[in-house]
Amino acid sequence: MLDYKLLEALAAVVECGGFERAGEALGLSQSAISQRIRTLEIRLGQPVLVRTPTLAPTPVGRQLLNHARRVQLLERDLSRALPTLESEAPRLRIAVNADSLATWWAEAVGVLCREEGVVLDLVVEDQEVGLRRLRDGDVAACLCASPQPIAGARALPLGRMSYLPLATPAYRERHFSAGPAAEAFRQAPAIVFGPNDQLQHRFLAQCGYHGPFPYHLCPASEGFVRLALAGMGYGMIPRMQVERRLAAGELVSIAPGQALEVPLYWHSWRHSGQLIERLSEALGAVSLV
Amino acid sequence: MLDYKLLEALAAVVECGGFERAGEALGLSQSAISQRIRTLEIRLGQPVLVRTPTLAPTPVGRQLLNHARRVQLLERDLSRALPTLESEAPRLRIAVNADSLATWWAEAVGVLCREEGVVLDLVVEDQEVGLRRLRDGDVAACLCASPQPIAGARALPLGRMSYLPLATPAYRERHFSAGPAAEAFRQAPAIVFGPNDQLQHRFLAQCGYHGPFPYHLCPASEGFVRLALAGMGYGMIPRMQVERRLAAGELVSIAPGQALEVPLYWHSWRHSGQLIERLSEALGAVSLV
Repeated sequence: MLDYKLLEALAAVVECGGFERAGEALGLSQSAISQRIRTLEIRLGQPVLVRTPTLAPTPVGRQLLNHARRVQLLERDLSRALPTLESEAPRLRIAVNADSLATWWAEAVGVLCREEGVVLDLVVEDQEVGLRRLRDGDVAACLCASPQPIAGARALPLGRMSYLPLATPAYRERHFSAGPAAEAFRQAPAIVFGPNDQLQHRFLAQCGYHGPFPYHLCPASEGFVRLALAGMGYGMIPRMQVERRLAAGELVSIAPGQALEVPLYWHSWRHSGQLIERLSEALGAVSLV
Repeated sequence: MLDYKLLEALAAVVECGGFERAGEALGLSQSAISQRIRTLEIRLGQPVLVRTPTLAPTPVGRQLLNHARRVQLLERDLSRALPTLESEAPRLRIAVNADSLATWWAEAVGVLCREEGVVLDLVVEDQEVGLRRLRDGDVAACLCASPQPIAGARALPLGRMSYLPLATPAYRERHFSAGPAAEAFRQAPAIVFGPNDQLQHRFLAQCGYHGPFPYHLCPASEGFVRLALAGMGYGMIPRMQVERRLAAGELVSIAPGQALEVPLYWHSWRHSGQLIERLSEALGAVSLV
């Protein structure tokens, strides 16, 4: 079988972001960690880590990490059946889209994580990047808008999140007093989550507008809402994130009646053990509107 | 002088995350964009972009982008003096730490951005990465906890953010009923922003604890608070982010009297034009507690 001490060292270096901290985490010296990584690279005949611009696994390193994480999950099930086997608190690395993390995610998984003593490594990603991380073995599961499962995994539908085009009342008055018209879209700054964010484009297309528009880029859910509240722009915001602010009239729709529904899917490897099964059950019980 | 059409194409490719979208943004075909990038690379004798794992500028590409962005800022000042000169809405690319973005940032800069018609490209980064981006020329300014200006830039102190070790009352009761003791820290899951986040370690050291501890990793400000609210762990949260939840008793300190003060500094290039000057003034007027 593989020498899992070597894979454990690799996982620690990647997780801790450095050799010294990996040593601290495993109770080993930095040079012992370096030695293990070197041994792994000699056996494979190729590098498992790239050092620049930041420390990161190579494609081969990622495959090893994926394997190590899946073995850890299976070990956990084994230690249930054989309680005398020593086993650490399981770490589960999961890619989650930012808006879910800022709203319903923690409440949905909190009880299970407490009961099972599981700790999470959350990775915040756009949907495509999240699925790629799953394929590369960098995460054990992924929550995103893509319905298409990758090979060996399955996609569980969780419902939809509803996005509204929101701004402050003053902003709407200044830019959209004549409604969602082309001239307004050409002038009024929007707020967009990132260069890959298609929500704004979908909204504009739904309004029949296909031209250029000025926009702020803000890749953080709460920051996005703060920019809207500061009157800097309008943007597509999940209704559930701002229920209270909508009720209080702090944010209003610049195009009443317009909304975008974004479906969410939970992607996980088949046969990855009971913990993922139970997490999938907990998420399956969520009913997003 | 340099051929700025080429630099503009490079900036668009990086900003839009692809050749096709860059073409759309500039009203050019994808092949025209490719041709400009190729011309730039032939003149320089080296690549300005790496294509894998994701499209990103090379170190030389970043230097060019930095230069182009600084020229754009200076052009903006010129177009003020010569109003007949055509000039687009300025785009300002800034690295901001996540907790500032989730709290006071937008309100501090909102009025200025509206008045000046400036749109922001916000990059959310740990402090060290933010400063490196400034040095590499990837951003025009950076908000972070490091007091040390890099060469050619200056660092303006903005005050401090106060972080408290918070959890739900039920979580405190379950894990910290005997106070912040070593045994509790060894068992109770913490929430940590990322592998480079030193706040949790500083807090534990302040409590006299230096051993291992279980933790969730959650690299998103609002998600972090949500994990704490779901009873999944305790974590260092900016007081100003959760004033209302503290007042309502939804979150409580697991170590009353303990807090960490994180200073914030605004780093910007010297001589980068009036817009950065005015932004610095607006930020200088902020009084963080």
